[in-house]
Amino acid sequence: MQAVGIIVEYNPFHNGHAYHLEQAKKQTESDCVIAVMSGHFLQRGEPALVSKWSRTKMALDAGADLVIELPYSFSTQKADTFASGAVSILDQLEVHSLCFGSEHGNIESFLDIIKLLEIHEQELSLQIQHEIKKGNSYPKAVSLALSHIISEPVALNLTQPNNILGLSYVKAIKKQLASIKPHTITRIQSHYHDEELSSSSITSATSIRHALFQSSLDVNELANYMPQHVLTSLMDYKKTFGTFHTWEHYFPFLKYRLMTMSPASLQEIYEIEEGIEYRLLSSIKEATSFEDFINKVKTKRYTRTRLQRMCVHILTDTSKEQMQPDQSSCSYIRLLGMSAIGRKYINHIKKRSSVPIVSTVSQYKLEDLLIDVKATDVYSLALNEPIRSTFLKQEYTLPPIMK
Amino acid sequence: MQAVGIIVEYNPFHNGHAYHLEQAKKQTESDCVIAVMSGHFLQRGEPALVSKWSRTKMALDAGADLVIELPYSFSTQKADTFASGAVSILDQLEVHSLCFGSEHGNIESFLDIIKLLEIHEQELSLQIQHEIKKGNSYPKAVSLALSHIISEPVALNLTQPNNILGLSYVKAIKKQLASIKPHTITRIQSHYHDEELSSSSITSATSIRHALFQSSLDVNELANYMPQHVLTSLMDYKKTFGTFHTWEHYFPFLKYRLMTMSPASLQEIYEIEEGIEYRLLSSIKEATSFEDFINKVKTKRYTRTRLQRMCVHILTDTSKEQMQPDQSSCSYIRLLGMSAIGRKYINHIKKRSSVPIVSTVSQYKLEDLLIDVKATDVYSLALNEPIRSTFLKQEYTLPPIMK
Repeated sequence: MQAVGIIVEYNPFHNGHAYHLEQAKKQTESDCVIAVMSGHFLQRGEPALVSKWSRTKMALDAGADLVIELPYSFSTQKADTFASGAVSILDQLEVHSLCFGSEHGNIESFLDIIKLLEIHEQELSLQIQHEIKKGNSYPKAVSLALSHIISEPVALNLTQPNNILGLSYVKAIKKQLASIKPHTITRIQSHYHDEELSSSSITSATSIRHALFQSSLDVNELANYMPQHVLTSLMDYKKTFGTFHTWEHYFPFLKYRLMTMSPASLQEIYEIEEGIEYRLLSSIKEATSFEDFINKVKTKRYTRTRLQRMCVHILTDTSKEQMQPDQSSCSYIRLLGMSAIGRKYINHIKKRSSVPIVSTVSQYKLEDLLIDVKATDVYSLALNEPIRSTFLKQEYTLPPIMK
Repeated sequence: MQAVGIIVEYNPFHNGHAYHLEQAKKQTESDCVIAVMSGHFLQRGEPALVSKWSRTKMALDAGADLVIELPYSFSTQKADTFASGAVSILDQLEVHSLCFGSEHGNIESFLDIIKLLEIHEQELSLQIQHEIKKGNSYPKAVSLALSHIISEPVALNLTQPNNILGLSYVKAIKKQLASIKPHTITRIQSHYHDEELSSSSITSATSIRHALFQSSLDVNELANYMPQHVLTSLMDYKKTFGTFHTWEHYFPFLKYRLMTMSPASLQEIYEIEEGIEYRLLSSIKEATSFEDFINKVKTKRYTRTRLQRMCVHILTDTSKEQMQPDQSSCSYIRLLGMSAIGRKYINHIKKRSSVPIVSTVSQYKLEDLLIDVKATDVYSLALNEPIRSTFLKQEYTLPPIMK
């Protein structure tokens, strides 16, 4: 049985994701699709709109065979670390290929650029540091450094978010000497960050989230952009739990937490460095919302995404010590959901897996899992009692969702 | 000019307090009444119903000449430490007498028992430890230890809260070799903890708080128990800030904070010891309110008051290190309010005071003051924006209230 891996967040699932899932299976001629999916906090430093359980159900209904949680310690990280964790899970699960969506859509360009990066590694690294010191964000610095050092034009546009992520996947495969074949599919959509719903059947997740929070939301309008089962799941979630999750729900806790922290204690939090702690502390008291807070703190160098990730770590009280940033592979595999094919596949792999495969949290006592459980504890705080307590029990007792 | 000191919380001010204030001045033949008052968090481990500013105004209107803040590091402590801080402030301010209300009402009995405590110090200390190990609370253990060791009947009932506090005041005066004459006035009220309003004009602060939170509250009914200016202040506070402050406002933050703490990090918090951290952590997830939480955790040994004080320290993230528990005297004097007489008195004292006298926080950079400012930051979280920000500015910029 041959498996293809995909790396996803599904925040929320839409027609573009359905196309990617279908094509990944088809183009790599696989029997089994394994989705590694971020848990409750995402790569851009945001809470997921709906729980990982709800998003697992969406993935299974759309044809994924196994859904594995990308742990907090990888899901809330910059592209390279995010990719390392996901690729290490897929390698453990012995996937044959990894298929990612990108703006570029041609795998050769990714492989070419990686060769260039290897050849010019040292001078690039220096140039990137130089660009960062000039106040550029990391992606921008990489892009500028490349254009300075490499004379030939680079085919891959490294200011596009899915090209950056894709490059990180391919780099991780090479670095981990994983026997995974990288594969890419052109994303069919206008722009990743678009806030307006598109006129075609494909629109950005950003625009869907935007629409979901509008008071004038016409649910039927969203039906153009996502499978019906996803729309039903989303509406069910809102009905059951009373809300979708946004940063604004967590802002009172973030504010409270920052108010009780000294610069020294803030410095112990993962990613807090270079004096940003003073800027965060001086801005929080006047901030009236999360949006207001980020706008007050953000600079060219401290991008929204970077700040949001810091805020997630402050919110969950995740320290530098806990995150062990050198760790580049995942030490457990947590099953969130499986189809009949997925079940067969995992049973086959299980016997020779070198890391534990976790079905139900309550049966494990792993230090790493504690961070994920804590993230879920914090995530639950957007919900009112007694719904919150019920929601939380899932995390400890729920076995993987079966399809 | 001769001054008498009183130690108060005024949560809220009522006719019993008015009587105490008046009698303190009269019986000690003083020209100036100095009230040392707990800030935003009180001795029983609770947030004050209304801000320290509002309570300062009540005290001035009722005839106090100086209102001094008892800092967080003393106000949220067991009787002996609470008393140490307050007495050290009054000693710095050169009061001639300290006048406290007690159930007992006869100062000789306080002095007698202190002699007995000194004579039997060592064996009493051992017996108290023994009673605590048997699961008794501290006040109960002291009372039992005394009855075991001292054959003659003890006139002072040490299970009554104001007798305990009074004894601590007298002990602190002796220990600090302060030239302050202790004086006590019998409290005229039924019971400190009574929840029902009394039929006389004196009722417990507990019963007033209870009445204030009832939806069927008839404001005029409260007019029997407090001066009109206090009732007006209370109603103004509710109108301006939208609420009185209760533990339930802070419970979501306490819960969030506990959810992100490990037993080891919880152990760094002041007063957390003997394994109570595990009990707190295992009870918080299921707790639906502060009341529910305390009821889940409380035992004979861990009394409500002791647990509430722990919760205040968790809420404000106050560590063992920060509290320096050996410190027995206050290192600054923070003026909250003064009358014309008080102003004259403080100007006179100021020249020879060995500790700084703080009028406006923004002019000081004192490590100790930071804990008080942080306590106010946290206290403000019960209020909605933009009212909260306005409220908070007071703490930094407001000079003492003048009467």
